[in-house]
Amino acid sequence: MTLWIRYTHDGREGFGQLDGERIAVFEGDLFGAPTATGETLPLAEVAVAMPCRPSKLIALWNNFHAMAEKQELTLPEAPLFFVKPASSYAASGAVIPIPEAAGRVVYEGELGIVIGKRIRDADEATAADAIFGYTCTNDVTAPSILKADASFAQWVRAKGLDGFSPFGPVIATGLDPATLTVRTLVNGRERQNYPVSDMVFPPARLVSLLSQGMTLEPGDLIACGTSNGVGPIPKGATVDVVIDGIGALSNRFE
Amino acid sequence: MTLWIRYTHDGREGFGQLDGERIAVFEGDLFGAPTATGETLPLAEVAVAMPCRPSKLIALWNNFHAMAEKQELTLPEAPLFFVKPASSYAASGAVIPIPEAAGRVVYEGELGIVIGKRIRDADEATAADAIFGYTCTNDVTAPSILKADASFAQWVRAKGLDGFSPFGPVIATGLDPATLTVRTLVNGRERQNYPVSDMVFPPARLVSLLSQGMTLEPGDLIACGTSNGVGPIPKGATVDVVIDGIGALSNRFE
Repeated sequence: MTLWIRYTHDGREGFGQLDGERIAVFEGDLFGAPTATGETLPLAEVAVAMPCRPSKLIALWNNFHAMAEKQELTLPEAPLFFVKPASSYAASGAVIPIPEAAGRVVYEGELGIVIGKRIRDADEATAADAIFGYTCTNDVTAPSILKADASFAQWVRAKGLDGFSPFGPVIATGLDPATLTVRTLVNGRERQNYPVSDMVFPPARLVSLLSQGMTLEPGDLIACGTSNGVGPIPKGATVDVVIDGIGALSNRFE
Repeated sequence: MTLWIRYTHDGREGFGQLDGERIAVFEGDLFGAPTATGETLPLAEVAVAMPCRPSKLIALWNNFHAMAEKQELTLPEAPLFFVKPASSYAASGAVIPIPEAAGRVVYEGELGIVIGKRIRDADEATAADAIFGYTCTNDVTAPSILKADASFAQWVRAKGLDGFSPFGPVIATGLDPATLTVRTLVNGRERQNYPVSDMVFPPARLVSLLSQGMTLEPGDLIACGTSNGVGPIPKGATVDVVIDGIGALSNRFE
């Protein structure tokens, strides 16, 4: 398993492999054939950046059996999704201001799939091969905006405000997503804890279905949807989305 | 009034000002202070490219009084929108294949607003100043995908397939949008003809409202929503979205 991290150090952006408290610096294209420079940096001396810059962030709704059961939702026949704007992306460690007009805001801890190869109309095997790795995401949502208009659910506005799509801190490669558990902690107290294996459309199948008629690009991010335990983010709270094997996405909300 | 065009010529991408059948070549940042190189190129010798590369494409629904009246929609209190993926962008002149699974596909001719300055929480005057110019867009839609799931309208999937967001051919600056008329022609026959002045949220107000809590970046594109006259695109048809003062966005669908 490899943990890829992107950072800024002395005003320069770089990336590398995280090994404990040190980063082995690489150069080139993360999704191509990056090469080690031989240099290392202490993690403590860098600012963690977003691990990639998605050309699109696809976010799923109603993709966990447990949540569908609890909310009495019909299981979907196809992935149900929207796209979150690039202006909502944020790195782990970023402090995220919540606009007054957003009202009460909730966390949604989710597994993120990072695409590594350009694909379209891919079968499941090709889709599996096109998955570069996995990250942690928080699909921050303002429910009052989502439901403000009875004729049109404002998925994008409610989830697309600046900073409402933090992801990171790393992309983990070479691990089996079916073994993972997503936990969300608010000020250190666990609020979500659910297995990725409960997904309605598991990663390879999801990527294959999303790619039908829609090209997926290296660096594209798929937020796999959340499960039970969604709840409010109190003012000033720190929310951690923790997936053992990947790491902890940590953001404070003001 | 200036018409900015982007193109490829001899395998290289460039941009400039379109003057009749010739392009005055510029260099630098279109949204900064581009400078003329003194070179010119015949329009006939270049391939027209997308005039900008939006970090997000925001698309409006229910933004024209006439359509709201005809469809008996309540006028919205805030702009209702979604975001279209970058993989759906296409240039004028591109041939757009429609996947079998999309079923019947419809055109939606629309005015596109191109942002020129980074803004957030902008008042109307600031928003007006941040509008770089205007272009033509076709918000291509597969209605059967949109309505396939009763619990979740698939706005993004239905409108986000590859090639479903053509825009261009140019960005026109220095014109008053309230004087413009959007016309859509299918194989040369006019199917839509509506005034931009009928917009529920006209451009400056729209940009101001969208910028609340969401940063707009130079090159971002806002498809202003369509009005009456939406209809099917027959296989093999050419659809032109024509806005006098800007130009004609022309795409063939296969």
